[in-house]
Amino acid sequence: MKKINLYEANGFNDLGLSKFLVHDSPYFKILSFNFRAGQQLPIHSHDSEGQLSILIIEGEGEFLAQDKTMPAKVGDILVCEISVPHGIRATTDMRVMVTIAPPF
Amino acid sequence: MKKINLYEANGFNDLGLSKFLVHDSPYFKILSFNFRAGQQLPIHSHDSEGQLSILIIEGEGEFLAQDKTMPAKVGDILVCEISVPHGIRATTDMRVMVTIAPPF
Repeated sequence: MKKINLYEANGFNDLGLSKFLVHDSPYFKILSFNFRAGQQLPIHSHDSEGQLSILIIEGEGEFLAQDKTMPAKVGDILVCEISVPHGIRATTDMRVMVTIAPPF
Repeated sequence: MKKINLYEANGFNDLGLSKFLVHDSPYFKILSFNFRAGQQLPIHSHDSEGQLSILIIEGEGEFLAQDKTMPAKVGDILVCEISVPHGIRATTDMRVMVTIAPPF
């Protein structure tokens, strides 16, 4: 049993998204990503089985999919296959939490 | 690929915690739990393999463990084995997101 505060554990980096590994196990991997306004995790996919969730904790931006973008605001959660192209772009400073199951 | 807003999808219930199933798949189960101040998910455990995470999205309370309590505030995430007794109690109105991998 462990407790981590995402706000205290991960800051921001003016040079690129700030990534913090919250947890990694055979069951799931949990990551904190913080973006300055304008930063992004470009659209990408992984050739592995499983799903991921992206929760917006703070700020605003857009979820990126292959043929569209979707507004992303606090409380929004995106769930998709790991193998389906996905990404995220911040329009304000933004904190998100990503969970990947199973980890790859 | 699906997007849900936790604030819009789940409200509060004065009679007990309000539970909303965000996602269920062979990989993970994602749940939204909203508590009025004073409501709780009593300490419990499940005899199955896997882990869960509990993220505090809004409000304050306490994580419950077998022999202690730990303060729970926005951005706190607790990770533990499904088989280890855990619970949560709200001291203000509180929103949390729970991820269980694999689902049981």
